Amino acid sequence: MSAESTAFVPGHITGFFTTHPDPDPTKAGSRGAGLTLSDGVRVTVAPASESIVELDGERIEVPPVDRVLDALDVTARIEATAALPLGAGFGVSGALSLGSALAANRVFERGLSANELVTIAHGAEVQSGTGLGDVVAQARGGIPIRLEPGSPPHGLLDAIPNRTRVEYVTFGEVSTSDVLEGNTDQITHAGKAALSRVVQEPTLGSFIYASRRFARESELLTPRVADAIRAVSDADGQASMAMLGDTVYALGTGLSDAGYDPNHCVTHPAGATLES
Amino acid sequence: MSAESTAFVPGHITGFFTTHPDPDPTKAGSRGAGLTLSDGVRVTVAPASESIVELDGERIEVPPVDRVLDALDVTARIEATAALPLGAGFGVSGALSLGSALAANRVFERGLSANELVTIAHGAEVQSGTGLGDVVAQARGGIPIRLEPGSPPHGLLDAIPNRTRVEYVTFGEVSTSDVLEGNTDQITHAGKAALSRVVQEPTLGSFIYASRRFARESELLTPRVADAIRAVSDADGQASMAMLGDTVYALGTGLSDAGYDPNHCVTHPAGATLES
Repeated sequence: MSAESTAFVPGHITGFFTTHPDPDPTKAGSRGAGLTLSDGVRVTVAPASESIVELDGERIEVPPVDRVLDALDVTARIEATAALPLGAGFGVSGALSLGSALAANRVFERGLSANELVTIAHGAEVQSGTGLGDVVAQARGGIPIRLEPGSPPHGLLDAIPNRTRVEYVTFGEVSTSDVLEGNTDQITHAGKAALSRVVQEPTLGSFIYASRRFARESELLTPRVADAIRAVSDADGQASMAMLGDTVYALGTGLSDAGYDPNHCVTHPAGATLES
Repeated sequence: MSAESTAFVPGHITGFFTTHPDPDPTKAGSRGAGLTLSDGVRVTVAPASESIVELDGERIEVPPVDRVLDALDVTARIEATAALPLGAGFGVSGALSLGSALAANRVFERGLSANELVTIAHGAEVQSGTGLGDVVAQARGGIPIRLEPGSPPHGLLDAIPNRTRVEYVTFGEVSTSDVLEGNTDQITHAGKAALSRVVQEPTLGSFIYASRRFARESELLTPRVADAIRAVSDADGQASMAMLGDTVYALGTGLSDAGYDPNHCVTHPAGATLES
């Protein structure tokens, strides 16, 4: 048993999605597309007599991480640092879950495969109501398209074969579980149209267009994000809303050009990886 | 249309495999497992009036790359640099094919998805008789286990969730097509046993053990690699043979400890990626 192990998991901005509930958490999930980010979450796992999670030095409760540790039958101290805010549409909860699974498997020599660990982390997110598609996207990296919901072997992914600088500004939180528990008909309708467009033309241009249209038609668009998208568009840029957070993101230098002072990173070529 | 685009594709050492011919090249392929390497191939594609391929400044003929360019309906100049020798079991041919597909899709704005490009590169390798499993492994990165043969949506991958330093020494070439056209019964028998072991216990230790046993039982083991494996083992290290090349590789510092002067790199966390 190693003393500790560290995993890095990229952040994930969902551009658009449709939800697919299923009694089997490995089949439940979402379709859609998004950007994985070089800004992400670093998760260090060490054996401990009691399981606790610290994010940037503060103790927090993360139900899916508890589920992951239960599934692996371990008690561990999880210390995470995030370049991204929690609850703002960056998949931090999914990153904590997947990073904990990868690092705990190594520390405690559980001998599970990558697919098994993704399945555990995905199932933990689904059962906690904290996410439906982040984990499988974060396990892949790049600009993933989620063609079929669920974790391996059910989920099916493709990707947009490109890379880009990404800028983002967060105004606040949106509760994923409130949205997922509400009426999702509008989301499903708008999400299907967006996916169909991106599958037909898997390019960054069609992704950001489909995402912006989804944000509007799903009625998830917040007033502050709508203002920012308009400002970016006026500066000849392309922006949309991170699902689900009160967060605007733009390709290239869209937000800078519009006078914002955004964070910036790039799409991340790799999925979640062990660093030590 | 951009002036040029560059892709990086990790090298890939196959530890063991079984072959699965099929009239449909997207279903043909191999099962097995291997290590993708941070030593890889950088491929730059630019439009040209005649298609040519240069590797490390020398013009070469690479039939699968010609097939990729045909499939994308482009003529291009391909300039590649490789940290690895061609024909020695590192998947250089697969890397050239996949890198050409990714970069040409970007330069010529073909609008294909990542899966479509992997499928084109995999099919080109299969039809050229130059490889059966490198492309799908190199598209994934890490330490891929090929559970089902073929490219998306047929192929199915898992992975060993770990990373390691890799050392290697190349003594010479082995012709992939000669082996694949010969009697593969021994290979199939040994490969099935190796895959079963690694699926049951997806760890680096079981991978190198299964690979070594496969090299022996498949009768592919060359005398120089056999000597080197023995020397590494005598120094308490773990080594096996790269399939298919007269190449020995070891985990960690196995070959250095045994007195060799090996090249070294690490397993590559990401699959093939566009750099520009």
